[in-house]
Amino acid sequence: MKSYRKELTIYTETRYAFLNITGDVQKAIDESGIKEGLVLVNPMHISASCFINDDESGLHHDFHKWLEKLAPHAPTSQWRHNDTGEDNADAHLKRQIMGREVVCAITKGSLDFGTWEQIFYGEFDGMRKKRVLIKIIGM
Amino acid sequence: MKSYRKELTIYTETRYAFLNITGDVQKAIDESGIKEGLVLVNPMHISASCFINDDESGLHHDFHKWLEKLAPHAPTSQWRHNDTGEDNADAHLKRQIMGREVVCAITKGSLDFGTWEQIFYGEFDGMRKKRVLIKIIGM
Amino acid sequence: MKSYRKELTIYTETRYAFLNITGDVQKAIDESGIKEGLVLVNPMHISASCFINDDESGLHHDFHKWLEKLAPHAPTSQWRHNDTGEDNADAHLKRQIMGREVVCAITKGSLDFGTWEQIFYGEFDGMRKKRVLIKIIGM
Repeated sequence: MKSYRKELTIYTETRYAFLNITGDVQKAIDESGIKEGLVLVNPMHISASCFINDDESGLHHDFHKWLEKLAPHAPTSQWRHNDTGEDNADAHLKRQIMGREVVCAITKGSLDFGTWEQIFYGEFDGMRKKRVLIKIIGM
Repeated sequence: MKSYRKELTIYTETRYAFLNITGDVQKAIDESGIKEGLVLVNPMHISASCFINDDESGLHHDFHKWLEKLAPHAPTSQWRHNDTGEDNADAHLKRQIMGREVVCAITKGSLDFGTWEQIFYGEFDGMRKKRVLIKIIGM
Repeated sequence: MKSYRKELTIYTETRYAFLNITGDVQKAIDESGIKEGLVLVNPMHISASCFINDDESGLHHDFHKWLEKLAPHAPTSQWRHNDTGEDNADAHLKRQIMGREVVCAITKGSLDFGTWEQIFYGEFDGMRKKRVLIKIIGM
């Protein structure tokens, strides 16, 4: 059994953003030399998500609009978390809908994905440096 | 360490459906010969979910009604993704609420589950052939 | 490769509660002797969640209020699941938003976490004995 660990560094210019990190995850798998196993991908933060969905800009627009409706940013005073001086309560909620982590299969050295599966980093409180953890175990 | 991979083929007659696939997952574990480990179960599609909940028809009715309220199918023009010619934007959103994948423990060769835990395939864009990936690692 | 299994027993005095179980998970990792691997943490019940977010009481208040809005408990007659004699349909729905399980990396014998990541047990149908499964695989 082998394991491999890697961190990605993320910085988005906007509060909300979706970044396709599929290539970064495959690169980490290549570096690991692991051919059969599992890869865990998660933000090391609680106001962001890693999730798998479609790389289609219209859908990303829909996600942002939909998340804003389900867990609105403003007025920031509606959330007690913001009494701490933060204004990112909505980011903690949005990340629960989108999920924290993805676990993916590795088969013959590659992400074992269907045609349209792509891994995204979902930022809900950007404009600061963030980290994504990639942990691989297998053989 | 050992690994095992299997695909299930799914076809539902309706756009929305929940299928109990617990027996299929246990069968794959049996075939693998793995006694201690983890099993990942995920659709290879981005408009479907694998999730764990109760096998109770009233609850499934509630899930469908609730998801339709949170992420409505119609009017399809409300979602920009549908400008691509698709009509399944709601399926991409519903799958985020229900989650993409489940990761389950295998102990002594069996799914290590509580009394009521059952694995479901949740279809939100059916009437076409879909695949579910089962990946097992352990010993 | 090694594996380790442990159950936590949970009892909450209230129907809804969030408990920080990060220390319990780290203790299980210590007991396992596993230095590199993955840990799965999930309730063995379908009306509860394990999730990772902030240990901040204002945010927990926000989560409870928000979940109640998205999947209200009352009137209980709005959910067909409650026709079975249960009154916990909302718990099954709330758990889907918060997710069932967390999978975390273990590096050098410790939970490989960012600064603010904490693991919670989210109870949505308490006042009865519940179990949490911790399954660790690695080396």
